[in-house]
Amino acid sequence: MSGAFILDLRLAVDTVPVLALALSDIRLMNDTRFPWLIMVPRRPGKVEIIDLDVADRALLMEEIAAVSHALKAATGCRKLNIGALGNAVRQLHVHVIARQTTDAAWPNPVWGVGKSVPYRSDERNKLIELIRTALPT
Amino acid sequence: MSGAFILDLRLAVDTVPVLALALSDIRLMNDTRFPWLIMVPRRPGKVEIIDLDVADRALLMEEIAAVSHALKAATGCRKLNIGALGNAVRQLHVHVIARQTTDAAWPNPVWGVGKSVPYRSDERNKLIELIRTALPT
Repeated sequence: MSGAFILDLRLAVDTVPVLALALSDIRLMNDTRFPWLIMVPRRPGKVEIIDLDVADRALLMEEIAAVSHALKAATGCRKLNIGALGNAVRQLHVHVIARQTTDAAWPNPVWGVGKSVPYRSDERNKLIELIRTALPT
Repeated sequence: MSGAFILDLRLAVDTVPVLALALSDIRLMNDTRFPWLIMVPRRPGKVEIIDLDVADRALLMEEIAAVSHALKAATGCRKLNIGALGNAVRQLHVHVIARQTTDAAWPNPVWGVGKSVPYRSDERNKLIELIRTALPT
């Protein structure tokens, strides 16, 4: 449960980096169907939120709030979906997803629905820039 | 966005009360397939976690941790799934679900999977007692 923090390989493949906050790396899922951020606390060996100590949990909550505000501002979403599941990828990570009533899964959760539709690099960069601008630095 | 706190009718129908923590009512989903708790902060008119003020968010995180520990102790689950979705029920609520690799949805999320299987009252009461015992009072 010690050693350096290394991003899970599947998360690395499915996402691109947006920003590093004090605790968590913020990454964008490469799927145009849903504006979908993944937060990965840089703490090696953590699986559950309760594996974090109380100070890190408090920080995680405030980073979830900051990311939520930024994603809502960037997308004008109807609803945020926030989740820590980790059934497939064990490394602790939190999903923050912007939902619209017109999206490909509404009102169901997005996980496991259909196949991802990758961004063109210009549209991906534009969304990342919007989110970065809305995040505290 | 003001007035008294009233539990959403669908949550009231689908769940039974377990305990009231400082911020949140803890309720058990009436579905034997998954030991599944719902946390409802008693704050009228809230939809998103970011609708809570910073003190309530901190309290919510610590209540999520307490509920997670209790549910894990009561079930010996392989993984906790934690989520705030609210696409169907707008009232702010957080799911804390005990997952096993042998359960009816693994490794997928539980939401929208099949039909719920209600508890017999004796097994429901036994589980509620286990969870209550593991929660701070």
